[in-house]
Amino acid sequence: MRTLVAKPLTAEAFAPYGDVIEASSAAEMIRINQGNTLRFHNLMPLDVADGGGSACVNIFRSTPLALPIVIKTMEYHPLGSQAFMPLSGEPYLVVVGKAGQFDGTVLEAFIAAPEQGVNYAKGTWHHFSLALNKVSDFLVLDRQGDGDNCVEHDLSADEQVTISF
Amino acid sequence: MRTLVAKPLTAEAFAPYGDVIEASSAAEMIRINQGNTLRFHNLMPLDVADGGGSACVNIFRSTPLALPIVIKTMEYHPLGSQAFMPLSGEPYLVVVGKAGQFDGTVLEAFIAAPEQGVNYAKGTWHHFSLALNKVSDFLVLDRQGDGDNCVEHDLSADEQVTISF
Repeated sequence: MRTLVAKPLTAEAFAPYGDVIEASSAAEMIRINQGNTLRFHNLMPLDVADGGGSACVNIFRSTPLALPIVIKTMEYHPLGSQAFMPLSGEPYLVVVGKAGQFDGTVLEAFIAAPEQGVNYAKGTWHHFSLALNKVSDFLVLDRQGDGDNCVEHDLSADEQVTISF
Repeated sequence: MRTLVAKPLTAEAFAPYGDVIEASSAAEMIRINQGNTLRFHNLMPLDVADGGGSACVNIFRSTPLALPIVIKTMEYHPLGSQAFMPLSGEPYLVVVGKAGQFDGTVLEAFIAAPEQGVNYAKGTWHHFSLALNKVSDFLVLDRQGDGDNCVEHDLSADEQVTISF
Protein backbone atom coordinates (compact mmCIF):
# COMPACT_ATOMS: atom_id res chain seq x y z
CA MET A 1 0.00 0.00 0.00
CA ARG A 2 1.27 3.43 -0.95
CA THR A 3 2.25 5.84 1.82
CA LEU A 4 1.37 9.54 1.69
CA VAL A 5 3.78 11.72 3.63
CA ALA A 6 1.94 14.55 5.34
CA LYS A 7 3.44 17.96 4.58
CA PRO A 8 3.20 21.00 6.84
CA LEU A 9 0.01 22.91 6.04
CA THR A 10 0.62 26.23 4.30
CA ALA A 11 -1.79 28.54 2.50
CA GLU A 12 0.25 28.23 -0.67
CA ALA A 13 0.33 24.43 -0.73
CA PHE A 14 -3.36 24.20 0.18
CA ALA A 15 -4.54 26.79 -2.35
CA PRO A 16 -5.78 24.23 -4.91
CA TYR A 17 -8.15 22.85 -2.27
CA GLY A 18 -9.36 25.90 -0.37
CA ASP A 19 -8.18 28.21 2.40
CA VAL A 20 -6.04 27.99 5.49
CA ILE A 21 -7.68 29.89 8.37
CA GLU A 22 -4.91 31.37 10.46
CA ALA A 23 -3.66 34.59 12.04
CA SER A 24 -1.12 35.14 9.30
CA SER A 25 0.78 38.27 8.44
CA ALA A 26 -0.47 37.71 4.90
CA ALA A 27 -3.99 38.63 6.02
CA GLU A 28 -5.45 42.13 6.09
CA MET A 29 -4.82 43.23 9.67
CA ILE A 30 -6.86 45.96 11.36
CA ARG A 31 -6.17 47.34 14.83
CA ILE A 32 -9.52 47.84 16.65
CA ASN A 33 -11.03 48.07 20.14
CA GLN A 34 -8.93 51.01 21.30
CA GLY A 35 -5.80 49.17 20.27
CA ASN A 36 -6.52 46.02 22.28
CA THR A 37 -7.46 43.77 19.37
CA LEU A 38 -5.82 42.88 16.09
CA ARG A 39 -8.39 41.75 13.53
CA PHE A 40 -7.16 39.32 10.86
CA HIS A 41 -9.88 40.15 8.40
CA ASN A 42 -11.98 37.98 6.11
CA LEU A 43 -9.87 34.83 6.08
CA MET A 44 -12.13 32.64 3.93
CA PRO A 45 -15.26 32.76 1.79
CA LEU A 46 -18.37 31.04 3.13
CA ASP A 47 -19.74 29.57 -0.08
CA VAL A 48 -23.08 28.12 0.98
CA ALA A 49 -25.82 29.84 -1.03
CA ASP A 50 -26.17 27.30 -3.87
CA GLY A 51 -29.63 25.81 -4.09
CA GLY A 52 -31.00 28.19 -1.50
CA GLY A 53 -28.58 27.05 1.17
CA SER A 54 -27.49 28.98 4.23
CA ALA A 55 -24.63 28.84 6.72
CA CYS A 56 -24.62 26.29 9.51
CA VAL A 57 -22.35 26.62 12.56
CA ASN A 58 -21.56 23.37 14.34
CA ILE A 59 -19.09 21.65 16.60
CA PHE A 60 -17.68 18.31 15.44
CA ARG A 61 -16.23 16.09 18.17
CA SER A 62 -13.87 13.67 16.45
CA THR A 63 -12.23 10.52 17.76
CA PRO A 64 -8.77 9.71 16.35
CA LEU A 65 -8.58 6.70 14.05
CA ALA A 66 -6.36 3.79 15.01
CA LEU A 67 -2.82 3.99 13.67
CA PRO A 68 -1.65 3.45 11.01
CA ILE A 69 -4.35 5.55 9.38
CA VAL A 70 -5.65 4.01 6.16
CA ILE A 71 -7.64 6.20 3.80
CA LYS A 72 -10.64 4.16 2.68
CA THR A 73 -13.30 6.73 1.88
CA MET A 74 -13.20 10.26 0.52
CA GLU A 75 -16.04 12.73 0.09
CA TYR A 76 -16.91 16.11 -1.33
CA HIS A 77 -19.70 18.61 -0.97
CA PRO A 78 -21.09 19.70 -4.34
CA LEU A 79 -23.22 22.52 -2.95
CA GLY A 80 -20.96 24.33 -0.50
CA SER A 81 -17.70 24.95 1.26
CA GLN A 82 -16.92 23.32 4.61
CA ALA A 83 -14.52 24.83 7.14
CA PHE A 84 -12.89 23.27 10.22
CA MET A 85 -11.29 25.32 12.98
CA PRO A 86 -9.59 23.23 15.69
CA LEU A 87 -10.69 23.98 19.27
CA SER A 88 -8.74 21.42 21.28
CA GLY A 89 -5.15 22.53 20.91
CA GLU A 90 -4.02 19.45 18.97
CA PRO A 91 -2.64 19.00 15.46
CA TYR A 92 -4.72 17.05 12.95
CA LEU A 93 -4.40 15.55 9.50
CA VAL A 94 -5.94 16.80 6.28
CA VAL A 95 -6.19 14.52 3.24
CA VAL A 96 -7.44 16.08 0.01
CA GLY A 97 -7.82 15.61 -3.72
CA LYS A 98 -8.65 18.10 -6.43
CA ALA A 99 -12.28 18.63 -7.43
CA GLY A 100 -13.59 16.61 -10.34
CA GLN A 101 -13.38 12.92 -11.20
CA PHE A 102 -11.80 11.06 -8.27
CA ASP A 103 -8.13 10.24 -8.84
CA GLY A 104 -6.50 8.27 -6.06
CA THR A 105 -3.01 8.84 -7.47
CA VAL A 106 -2.93 12.56 -6.74
CA LEU A 107 -4.12 12.77 -3.15
CA GLU A 108 -2.18 15.01 -0.78
CA ALA A 109 -1.85 14.89 3.00
CA PHE A 110 -1.10 17.81 5.31
CA ILE A 111 -0.49 18.08 9.00
CA ALA A 112 -2.23 21.12 10.44
CA ALA A 113 -0.95 22.93 13.51
CA PRO A 114 -3.39 23.42 16.41
CA GLU A 115 -3.85 27.07 15.36
CA GLN A 116 -4.65 26.35 11.72
CA GLY A 117 -8.09 25.79 10.28
CA VAL A 118 -8.97 24.64 6.78
CA ASN A 119 -11.81 25.57 4.47
CA TYR A 120 -12.52 22.97 1.80
CA ALA A 121 -13.72 24.68 -1.35
CA LYS A 122 -16.94 23.38 -2.86
CA GLY A 123 -16.13 20.16 -4.69
CA THR A 124 -12.75 19.45 -3.06
CA TRP A 125 -12.28 15.78 -2.26
CA HIS A 126 -11.38 15.31 1.42
CA HIS A 127 -11.32 12.78 4.18
CA PHE A 128 -13.45 13.38 7.24
CA SER A 129 -11.76 15.11 10.19
CA LEU A 130 -8.67 13.22 11.31
CA ALA A 131 -8.05 14.18 14.92
CA LEU A 132 -4.74 13.17 16.47
CA ASN A 133 -3.68 12.44 20.06
CA LYS A 134 -7.10 12.80 21.70
CA VAL A 135 -10.78 13.34 21.04
CA SER A 136 -10.83 16.83 19.51
CA ASP A 137 -13.46 19.46 18.82
CA PHE A 138 -13.66 21.57 15.67
CA LEU A 139 -15.89 24.52 14.91
CA VAL A 140 -17.38 23.65 11.53
CA LEU A 141 -18.90 26.15 9.12
CA ASP A 142 -20.87 24.50 6.35
CA ARG A 143 -24.10 24.58 4.38
CA GLN A 144 -27.61 23.62 5.35
CA GLY A 145 -30.48 23.46 2.90
CA ASP A 146 -32.17 21.27 0.34
CA GLY A 147 -30.28 18.96 -1.99
CA ASP A 148 -27.77 16.13 -1.60
CA ASN A 149 -24.58 17.83 -0.45
CA CYS A 150 -22.33 14.83 0.18
CA VAL A 151 -20.78 12.55 -2.44
CA GLU A 152 -18.65 9.67 -1.17
CA HIS A 153 -16.12 7.47 -2.92
CA ASP A 154 -14.96 4.19 -1.39
CA LEU A 155 -11.36 3.62 -2.39
CA SER A 156 -10.49 0.33 -4.05
CA ALA A 157 -7.71 -1.73 -2.46
CA ASP A 158 -5.34 -0.30 -5.09
CA GLU A 159 -6.37 3.26 -4.29
CA GLN A 160 -6.06 3.04 -0.50
CA VAL A 161 -3.11 4.82 1.12
CA THR A 162 -1.60 5.11 4.56
CA ILE A 163 -0.48 8.40 6.02
CA SER A 164 2.95 9.01 7.47
CA PHE A 165 3.37 12.08 9.67
CA MET B 1 -18.17 52.67 41.29
CA ARG B 2 -20.59 49.78 41.06
CA THR B 3 -19.19 46.25 40.75
CA LEU B 4 -20.71 43.68 38.42
CA VAL B 5 -20.16 40.10 39.53
CA ALA B 6 -19.52 37.83 36.56
CA LYS B 7 -21.81 34.79 36.51
CA PRO B 8 -20.98 31.48 34.87
CA LEU B 9 -22.05 31.57 31.23
CA THR B 10 -25.07 29.38 30.48
CA ALA B 11 -27.31 29.25 27.43
CA GLU B 12 -30.33 30.02 29.60
CA ALA B 13 -28.84 33.08 31.29
CA PHE B 14 -27.45 34.38 27.99
CA ALA B 15 -30.66 33.84 25.98
CA PRO B 16 -31.75 37.52 26.12
CA TYR B 17 -28.49 38.47 24.40
CA GLY B 18 -27.87 35.69 21.89
CA ASP B 19 -26.45 32.18 21.82
CA VAL B 20 -23.84 30.16 23.63
CA ILE B 21 -21.80 28.08 21.17
CA GLU B 22 -20.87 24.85 22.91
CA ALA B 23 -20.94 21.07 22.59
CA SER B 24 -23.97 20.77 24.81
CA SER B 25 -26.28 17.81 25.24
CA ALA B 26 -29.08 20.29 24.57
CA ALA B 27 -27.98 20.51 20.93
CA GLU B 28 -29.15 18.26 18.13
CA MET B 29 -26.46 15.58 18.01
CA ILE B 30 -25.79 13.50 14.91
CA ARG B 31 -23.30 10.64 14.72
CA ILE B 32 -21.44 10.81 11.39
CA ASN B 33 -18.18 9.77 9.70
CA GLN B 34 -18.60 6.04 10.28
CA GLY B 35 -19.17 6.70 13.95
CA ASN B 36 -15.99 8.68 14.51
CA THR B 37 -17.57 12.13 14.80
CA LEU B 38 -20.40 13.55 16.86
CA ARG B 39 -21.90 16.60 15.17
CA PHE B 40 -23.49 19.21 17.48
CA HIS B 41 -25.70 20.67 14.83
CA ASN B 42 -26.60 24.27 13.97
CA LEU B 43 -25.61 25.96 17.24
CA MET B 44 -26.36 29.55 16.26
CA PRO B 45 -27.93 31.64 13.52
CA LEU B 46 -25.63 33.74 11.35
CA ASP B 47 -27.76 36.87 10.94
CA VAL B 48 -25.76 38.96 8.47
CA ALA B 49 -27.92 39.52 5.39
CA ASP B 50 -29.40 42.92 6.33
CA GLY B 51 -28.56 45.65 3.85
CA GLY B 52 -27.01 43.18 1.42
CA GLY B 53 -24.45 41.97 3.97
CA SER B 54 -22.61 38.67 3.92
CA ALA B 55 -20.68 36.56 6.41
CA CYS B 56 -17.11 37.44 7.33
CA VAL B 57 -14.79 34.94 9.03
CA ASN B 58 -11.94 36.49 11.00
CA ILE B 59 -9.52 35.91 13.84
CA PHE B 60 -9.40 38.52 16.61
CA ARG B 61 -6.19 38.58 18.69
CA SER B 62 -7.08 40.30 21.96
CA THR B 63 -4.81 41.62 24.69
CA PRO B 64 -6.21 41.46 28.25
CA LEU B 65 -7.08 44.79 29.83
CA ALA B 66 -5.31 45.84 33.03
CA LEU B 67 -7.07 44.80 36.24
CA PRO B 68 -9.40 45.87 37.67
CA ILE B 69 -11.38 45.98 34.44
CA VAL B 70 -13.49 49.13 34.13
CA ILE B 71 -16.26 49.15 31.54
CA LYS B 72 -16.05 52.50 29.77
CA THR B 73 -17.50 51.86 26.32
CA MET B 74 -20.17 49.54 25.01
CA GLU B 75 -21.19 48.88 21.42
CA TYR B 76 -23.76 47.10 19.30
CA HIS B 77 -24.08 46.06 15.69
CA PRO B 78 -27.38 47.18 14.17
CA LEU B 79 -27.01 45.19 10.98
CA GLY B 80 -25.84 41.77 12.10
CA SER B 81 -24.92 39.18 14.67
CA GLN B 82 -21.33 38.75 15.85
CA ALA B 83 -19.97 35.48 17.22
CA PHE B 84 -16.75 34.78 19.15
CA MET B 85 -15.32 31.30 19.56
CA PRO B 86 -12.23 31.14 21.80
CA LEU B 87 -9.16 29.46 20.28
CA SER B 88 -6.53 29.88 23.00
CA GLY B 89 -7.80 27.68 25.82
CA GLU B 90 -8.44 30.53 28.24
CA PRO B 91 -11.60 31.83 29.89
CA TYR B 92 -12.81 35.32 29.02
CA LEU B 93 -15.35 37.86 30.16
CA VAL B 94 -18.57 38.84 28.44
CA VAL B 95 -20.36 42.08 29.36
CA VAL B 96 -23.75 42.70 27.77
CA GLY B 97 -26.88 44.82 27.86
CA LYS B 98 -30.24 44.29 26.22
CA ALA B 99 -30.89 45.76 22.77
CA GLY B 100 -32.54 49.17 22.64
CA GLN B 101 -31.83 52.44 24.43
CA PHE B 102 -28.63 52.04 26.47
CA ASP B 103 -29.30 51.45 30.18
CA GLY B 104 -26.18 51.20 32.31
CA THR B 105 -28.14 49.92 35.32
CA VAL B 106 -29.00 46.55 33.77
CA LEU B 107 -25.70 45.35 32.36
CA GLU B 108 -24.72 41.74 33.03
CA ALA B 109 -21.30 40.09 33.14
CA PHE B 110 -20.50 36.46 32.45
CA ILE B 111 -17.35 34.42 32.65
CA ALA B 112 -17.06 32.06 29.69
CA ALA B 113 -15.19 28.78 29.88
CA PRO B 114 -12.45 28.14 27.29
CA GLU B 115 -14.83 25.82 25.39
CA GLN B 116 -17.72 28.27 25.20
CA GLY B 117 -18.36 30.75 22.41
CA VAL B 118 -20.93 33.51 22.33
CA ASN B 119 -23.02 34.92 19.51
CA TYR B 120 -24.29 38.43 20.15
CA ALA B 121 -27.68 38.88 18.53
CA LYS B 122 -28.10 41.89 16.26
CA GLY B 123 -28.53 44.95 18.48
CA THR B 124 -27.22 43.44 21.74
CA TRP B 125 -25.04 45.89 23.65
CA HIS B 126 -21.66 44.33 24.45
CA HIS B 127 -18.13 45.18 25.41
CA PHE B 128 -15.33 44.26 23.03
CA SER B 129 -13.61 40.93 23.64
CA LEU B 130 -12.21 40.71 27.16
CA ALA B 131 -9.43 38.15 27.09
CA LEU B 132 -8.03 36.97 30.41
CA ASN B 133 -4.63 35.61 31.46
CA LYS B 134 -2.85 36.02 28.12
CA VAL B 135 -3.19 37.35 24.61
CA SER B 136 -5.98 35.21 23.17
CA ASP B 137 -7.34 34.45 19.73
CA PHE B 138 -11.03 34.16 18.84
CA LEU B 139 -12.64 33.00 15.63
CA VAL B 140 -15.14 35.75 14.86
CA LEU B 141 -18.15 35.38 12.57
CA ASP B 142 -19.73 38.67 11.68
CA ARG B 143 -21.13 40.77 8.85
CA GLN B 144 -19.40 42.56 6.02
CA GLY B 145 -21.16 44.92 3.65
CA ASP B 146 -22.36 48.47 3.20
CA GLY B 147 -23.77 50.54 6.04
CA ASP B 148 -22.58 51.65 9.48
CA ASN B 149 -22.66 48.48 11.57
CA CYS B 150 -21.16 49.71 14.84
CA VAL B 151 -22.80 52.04 17.37
CA GLU B 152 -20.75 52.96 20.44
CA HIS B 153 -21.77 54.45 23.78
CA ASP B 154 -19.18 55.98 26.11
CA LEU B 155 -20.34 55.39 29.66
CA SER B 156 -20.58 58.42 31.96
CA ALA B 157 -18.68 58.28 35.24
CA ASP B 158 -21.93 57.25 36.93
CA GLU B 159 -22.53 54.44 34.46
CA GLN B 160 -19.06 52.90 34.59
CA VAL B 161 -18.73 49.56 36.38
CA THR B 162 -15.92 47.25 37.43
CA ILE B 163 -16.08 43.51 36.93
CA SER B 164 -15.48 41.01 39.70
CA PHE B 165 -14.77 37.42 38.64
